[in-house]
Amino acid sequence: MTQHQSNLDAQSPSRPLNVAIVGATGAVGIELMGCLERRGFPVASLRLLASPRSAGKTLPFRGQDLVVEPLGPNSFDGIDVALFSAGATISRQYAPVAVAAGCVVVDNSSAFRMDEDVPLVVPEVNGALLADQPKVVANPNCVAAIAVMALQPLHAHNKVTRVIGATYQSASGAGAQAMAELEASTAAYLKGEAYAPQVLPHPYAFNLFSHNAGVDAETGYNGEELKAMAEIRKIMSAPDMRLSFTCVRVPVLRAHSMSLVVEFENPVTPGEAEAWLADAPGVRLVNDHAANHYPMPNEASGGDDVLVGRIRADLSDPTGRTLSLFLSGDQLLKGAALNAVQIAEALPR
Amino acid sequence: MTQHQSNLDAQSPSRPLNVAIVGATGAVGIELMGCLERRGFPVASLRLLASPRSAGKTLPFRGQDLVVEPLGPNSFDGIDVALFSAGATISRQYAPVAVAAGCVVVDNSSAFRMDEDVPLVVPEVNGALLADQPKVVANPNCVAAIAVMALQPLHAHNKVTRVIGATYQSASGAGAQAMAELEASTAAYLKGEAYAPQVLPHPYAFNLFSHNAGVDAETGYNGEELKAMAEIRKIMSAPDMRLSFTCVRVPVLRAHSMSLVVEFENPVTPGEAEAWLADAPGVRLVNDHAANHYPMPNEASGGDDVLVGRIRADLSDPTGRTLSLFLSGDQLLKGAALNAVQIAEALPR
Repeated sequence: MTQHQSNLDAQSPSRPLNVAIVGATGAVGIELMGCLERRGFPVASLRLLASPRSAGKTLPFRGQDLVVEPLGPNSFDGIDVALFSAGATISRQYAPVAVAAGCVVVDNSSAFRMDEDVPLVVPEVNGALLADQPKVVANPNCVAAIAVMALQPLHAHNKVTRVIGATYQSASGAGAQAMAELEASTAAYLKGEAYAPQVLPHPYAFNLFSHNAGVDAETGYNGEELKAMAEIRKIMSAPDMRLSFTCVRVPVLRAHSMSLVVEFENPVTPGEAEAWLADAPGVRLVNDHAANHYPMPNEASGGDDVLVGRIRADLSDPTGRTLSLFLSGDQLLKGAALNAVQIAEALPR
Repeated sequence: MTQHQSNLDAQSPSRPLNVAIVGATGAVGIELMGCLERRGFPVASLRLLASPRSAGKTLPFRGQDLVVEPLGPNSFDGIDVALFSAGATISRQYAPVAVAAGCVVVDNSSAFRMDEDVPLVVPEVNGALLADQPKVVANPNCVAAIAVMALQPLHAHNKVTRVIGATYQSASGAGAQAMAELEASTAAYLKGEAYAPQVLPHPYAFNLFSHNAGVDAETGYNGEELKAMAEIRKIMSAPDMRLSFTCVRVPVLRAHSMSLVVEFENPVTPGEAEAWLADAPGVRLVNDHAANHYPMPNEASGGDDVLVGRIRADLSDPTGRTLSLFLSGDQLLKGAALNAVQIAEALPR
């Protein structure tokens, strides 16, 4: 608890809130505005903050054009909730400024996710942590956020002991410029023209590559994989869960998919898992064997639900304790902006 | 052994061979011609066979234009080796015709792969089976062919007990028309135009989907997964190996990639695996942690080698008996045409 009372709990619970978005012009920033508007979040005022380079641009919100302001030391005066999505460096520098101004910070960067005194929240899983009135709440890595939506409803019924994941991650996870690079490089490829990658380290047109996060020399796992694994354990309060992820960037624009092989403490059937997932908020079963219709990025994109399907008894485990499943979820929504706004909605007021 | 002596072993071992390609105009057929030419296969004559619809087309081979002939009952007269790549129905109908004509059949379809008396061959793994002078040799499914190139060199040193695979399969596995559909639908997407899928069951532009093979209602695995699993066991003579594959079609043109989590009987280190793979024919290590440079389809495409990298101790197995790896291999080459021509090269003469 800081010495400041937050602007949020200092006021009547029903009053609309003064909201700031840090990184408003990025891919996630745009989606944050969309989520606030679409979900009818009680916004009294919205302050859009970005780097000086983007300041002066206008962005539409509820039929008005809002001018982007440069982020600075006084940006959070009078703000109740600040949604940060401008990278870990900006968060480390400005989240304390926002908290000092009495603001509650929902941070989409990795800056505070593994801090012991910062809750890392997916509301459907561990939203109860928000009752403690934290000043900073961390929004998880997109892979972790999407994975726990399917894992937690299973874990609640039959303890998950091990997960082996392989991801199919979209361009959006690397930002709007990466999405533009995927489109531009693909257009060039189709015209037979050369294209030199500028945003991502490898050619992206009709290609895929191991996730572009730096590789840990000791383990050989990349930063995305290590983040996803640590965050899943933290969100699910499952420090002993054994995890291995392989994170791969595929030429898809904005939804992440993943294959999960999930081992349980006790025997489990696909039918049980389907029933548990069918009851889970934010999850939609797409599991039509006859039609070969399963989760796909094009059907997950733009939607709030994490799609779950291909639920089957894993044939490599003769003990009947392992299931395979396949997920798709919008990286910019449940993997980022939607979850952040859901956190803001669930903050005690 | 049929009652016919094959044309192949009836003659001098050094003479050039009369070769037929069934399905010459398909994606694999074209690559078969390329492999024969590029590898200097001793071709005395080349007969190109296809459906009546494609008959009359010409295709270049060694600087000559060869006319495609319609497949018929006399197509194999005087032929020594017939390379079939026109689907299982054609293989079931015409392979017996070819064998009766004294021909050795190398069949790229699934028709005979699991027949007990038909060897299923990847020459680097079990080419020794060809010494028995089979009349029909089956060429494996592309996932199986690529996977065993990495698994066998490991298995030879430390028994592989379990493999969990997730694939990233290219359009080429569904044929030349699927490759064209990927390009055409992507071009339409970039122009903002609608595109109705005609070859594959789902939209393919910047999208991915569970493999389009039919799904087994009992297990929930699709035909591609079941084939890959059964064939890996057969090629590696490992009937007890526990396997689970998830096969996914990604918007890549012609190389298949896969994430493999490999469990061994005894503890193993990434360094040991690298050394075993570095010595394996047809495998190229692409495993540069510092540069984040690992197997990618764009570097596997058009090449004979299966690229192997991301070799690391799997963090979900505290017993140290599991490694993770990532592979890319050209589906049309090692996954199809190259392997077929390698089989033909290794036939006893």
